[in-house]
Amino acid sequence: MKTDIEIAQQATLKPIGEIAAGLNLSEEEWEPYGHTKAKLSDNLLNKFKDKADGKIILVTSINPTPAGEGKSTVTVGLGQALNRLGEKAVIALREPSLGPVMGMKGGAAGGGYSQVLPMEDINLHFTGDLHAITSANNALSAMIDNHIHRGNNLNIDPRRIEWKRVMDMNDRVLRQIVVGLGGPLRGVPREDGFNITVASEIMAILCLSTSLEDLKARIAKIVIGYSYDEEPVMVKDLKIEGALTLLLKDAIKPNLVQTIENTPAIIHGGPFANIAHGCNSIMATKTAAKLGDYVVTEAGFGADLGAEKFLDIKSRAGEFDTDAVVIVATVRALKMHGGVAKDNLTEENVDALKAGMKNLKKHIETIETYGLPYVVAINKFPTDTSAETGFIESWCESRGIGVALTDVWAKGGEGGIQLAEKIIEKTETPERNFKRLYELEETLETKIRKIAQTVYGADDIELSPKAKKQIIFYEQQGWGKLPVCMAKTQYSLSDDPSLLGRPEGFTISIREMRPSVGAGFIVVLTGDMMTMPGLPKNPAALNMDVTDDGKIVGLF
Amino acid sequence: MKTDIEIAQQATLKPIGEIAAGLNLSEEEWEPYGHTKAKLSDNLLNKFKDKADGKIILVTSINPTPAGEGKSTVTVGLGQALNRLGEKAVIALREPSLGPVMGMKGGAAGGGYSQVLPMEDINLHFTGDLHAITSANNALSAMIDNHIHRGNNLNIDPRRIEWKRVMDMNDRVLRQIVVGLGGPLRGVPREDGFNITVASEIMAILCLSTSLEDLKARIAKIVIGYSYDEEPVMVKDLKIEGALTLLLKDAIKPNLVQTIENTPAIIHGGPFANIAHGCNSIMATKTAAKLGDYVVTEAGFGADLGAEKFLDIKSRAGEFDTDAVVIVATVRALKMHGGVAKDNLTEENVDALKAGMKNLKKHIETIETYGLPYVVAINKFPTDTSAETGFIESWCESRGIGVALTDVWAKGGEGGIQLAEKIIEKTETPERNFKRLYELEETLETKIRKIAQTVYGADDIELSPKAKKQIIFYEQQGWGKLPVCMAKTQYSLSDDPSLLGRPEGFTISIREMRPSVGAGFIVVLTGDMMTMPGLPKNPAALNMDVTDDGKIVGLF
Repeated sequence: MKTDIEIAQQATLKPIGEIAAGLNLSEEEWEPYGHTKAKLSDNLLNKFKDKADGKIILVTSINPTPAGEGKSTVTVGLGQALNRLGEKAVIALREPSLGPVMGMKGGAAGGGYSQVLPMEDINLHFTGDLHAITSANNALSAMIDNHIHRGNNLNIDPRRIEWKRVMDMNDRVLRQIVVGLGGPLRGVPREDGFNITVASEIMAILCLSTSLEDLKARIAKIVIGYSYDEEPVMVKDLKIEGALTLLLKDAIKPNLVQTIENTPAIIHGGPFANIAHGCNSIMATKTAAKLGDYVVTEAGFGADLGAEKFLDIKSRAGEFDTDAVVIVATVRALKMHGGVAKDNLTEENVDALKAGMKNLKKHIETIETYGLPYVVAINKFPTDTSAETGFIESWCESRGIGVALTDVWAKGGEGGIQLAEKIIEKTETPERNFKRLYELEETLETKIRKIAQTVYGADDIELSPKAKKQIIFYEQQGWGKLPVCMAKTQYSLSDDPSLLGRPEGFTISIREMRPSVGAGFIVVLTGDMMTMPGLPKNPAALNMDVTDDGKIVGLF
Repeated sequence: MKTDIEIAQQATLKPIGEIAAGLNLSEEEWEPYGHTKAKLSDNLLNKFKDKADGKIILVTSINPTPAGEGKSTVTVGLGQALNRLGEKAVIALREPSLGPVMGMKGGAAGGGYSQVLPMEDINLHFTGDLHAITSANNALSAMIDNHIHRGNNLNIDPRRIEWKRVMDMNDRVLRQIVVGLGGPLRGVPREDGFNITVASEIMAILCLSTSLEDLKARIAKIVIGYSYDEEPVMVKDLKIEGALTLLLKDAIKPNLVQTIENTPAIIHGGPFANIAHGCNSIMATKTAAKLGDYVVTEAGFGADLGAEKFLDIKSRAGEFDTDAVVIVATVRALKMHGGVAKDNLTEENVDALKAGMKNLKKHIETIETYGLPYVVAINKFPTDTSAETGFIESWCESRGIGVALTDVWAKGGEGGIQLAEKIIEKTETPERNFKRLYELEETLETKIRKIAQTVYGADDIELSPKAKKQIIFYEQQGWGKLPVCMAKTQYSLSDDPSLLGRPEGFTISIREMRPSVGAGFIVVLTGDMMTMPGLPKNPAALNMDVTDDGKIVGLF
């Protein structure tokens, strides 16, 4: 079987100008980055503000397992299938982070015959957006420490700085560090730490901004920590929002590429869905909706994380409608949810599959709670048996649930035709009755409890003493009306990654919160969530190489 | 008077494809990055290996002062002037580092009507080369710490790791840090520190490599530290040279832009000249020499730093000839070397100028020691009086030294015609008799002493006990035949930045050394040199902004 990169290297890409022309973009509306990548003008949303939006299809999934669901692959495959049906579809995806690329096998560029290309660039530096975010984040850190070193006019308490440095790398030793050692030439010592870039509030801001102007206004509102009087200190107090916005002037422009079947794809912004809000940028999704009749976009991990944040944070900030949802499931992952060990997944096991269906059922209930039409997509793997896929199909059909078997990895858009037809139908039926899970006026505690009970299926939440104090303080500061962004393991509906299937009788432990006032939400950390990953024993980087004549090997 | 960015924003740039076509490059030999930047193929050197090189002109200067000399501006102006004379000239410059851009006013893109454009991109993220170097450097750091955390099969001594993390930022609190705090989930604690990216050995390697193949071979040889048995541990022991090279696959490609007068400029690689080797890449300079009849290139800071390293490190590794040298001086800086305080530089003061000439004289002697033909360029400032510029001209002429008054900031290439005519003449006369300052076979101590005595004018060198031990150890390891890369203040010929003019009777203190075996030199740290700068009290970033419609302000 060919690897993703072998398939990618045999593809024939169109010049990106042809893809742009196919979207009726004029020459001034895009800039080339190499022959197959482009940046779109950040002014398109303004230009097309009176044009009706295309239909927005959200792709989400069951809780992921090491077996993989291929949510990005289905997203790409569905976009390709819609195009094969003669519809004008545009795909909107997140940009991969270099940390996981170097750490674990698996990118965010889809796979097989449903990939976005050039995958080797998309998975490495792409057009530099993550680097620009890293620079802006760390320029702010340097300005904070320089301010303290140079007299600390703002009276910043070095013990209460919430703003961390970032690096787009999996690097556990940077989680907790001490900086400023070695005497007066080396600044004022304090405890600090690095997050991975995709967890930076600047990433969230970039993804939730609707213009350069909005970006700057949000950056100005970032709370970097507190003074000795326990008053919030903001970026605007440091007068650095202009420079930070300048560093992001190109990063805010959505990136245009194409799939292996030449379907246009806008790839922009890449927060993780476990420790951040997990969606590509509003500018990408809304620009795609202006350029296409259908937008296929994904939100990270399962519906408990990505979809919840897409519906309660992103689509609220972006003021757009979601027209239909695809819930991706795989036989392999459902068998794991049914208790099968990873090594035994290639054996047929309908009983385990049946037991694992409760995970899918929970996510279906969640999407129904939001009142959105949906289709279940079974993403086919070569080891699936017809008894297994047939079981899922009958299970859905007997409940009146739309279901489609997709084979987009092996067959590209052709393998997603059935899904495309069913999803078109869903976008055309009037069964949509969208309602958000919570209103902004509710208290932070209520918002967290609603998510935990309704989406995760928890009995209740348990707030740590620190979290309780933070809620009081945040509400005093006027931040109580913000949505919440849950940081929770992706592997379980609960906050314990070992509880697969559909856990019951659990509580969600809320350890602490962090105000992302610029992004416009409060991050709520559950369990042991860390905002900087580590590398595995044998990192994927060990297999990567580039030959003397420039051919890339080992990148998945 | 207009600022640099105002002048830049009024310029009319040609599409980069026209500039490439003017160099007879075919479509496959370059890739666009926006409409006015491009990456050139890294295969051009190989393709044109049998084509004769154009003439290479090195631009250097006296010791810089806060008054500024405008070496990059003269480099750009000279290239433009050569083109006005009908010669096919290509400029080769370094890429600016974001740290100083955010810190102090002053970029590396020239100024006035002798700028490379688009200056706002060049001075910010440009084509991402520095970000790629940062990523590769820090991926290596993460792999080292992960290796130790995961059992440490290579027996790496965490106390003897020489490889530091880097950031392209001026951030003093990162100079000395402790990482890995907080228990087993956060790795193994150790002392560490960040250098600025331009001081990374990977930057030096990128600049000294002649192909992708050479790049990988050099990366494999990087010494990251020592085992508990005090044996060197190299990147190839970690088996990560392939992945690091992959991260640099685009960064190794030289970048093509244009000047304000549409003269082609290749801007690639940007090590500082005080803490690193201070020259743009060999691939940039040699590619420029294949594409133009004249290459105008600069080396950082004064001739004691940049030119010495250009001639003893870069041109040796790149196996190319230097055809002539321009030594840039300004009335203002020479008056400072003659004892005038910075605030009084606008007043005519021929006596101080006369006293300051000794700094210029020393650098002239240095270039004469190398046996290269040269011209002194007086870079005119509006406050210079004709008595002052006339004094320098007579001083040179009475000694038979070629001299040219240049006014390239205000007049562009037109202001450099005289310099261009004189330098063409120098490249055509047979007075060249190039000899390097030292041979590789000499000991490290001899090499350092020769540089200190001949180039700096020191009485002798003084080795710290640590440096003495390192010399013995390095020679045992077989590293004694490498050239040395001096890390010394740019402000003085000595290692004391306060000693202007031409100090005498001083010794150079050698604090310690660092082996850059991959780059192919030994870094020698003198005085208090730090490899991570700090921000000033009022960083330049405070004045930077981008308006809602995308106009950039405050970037110089």
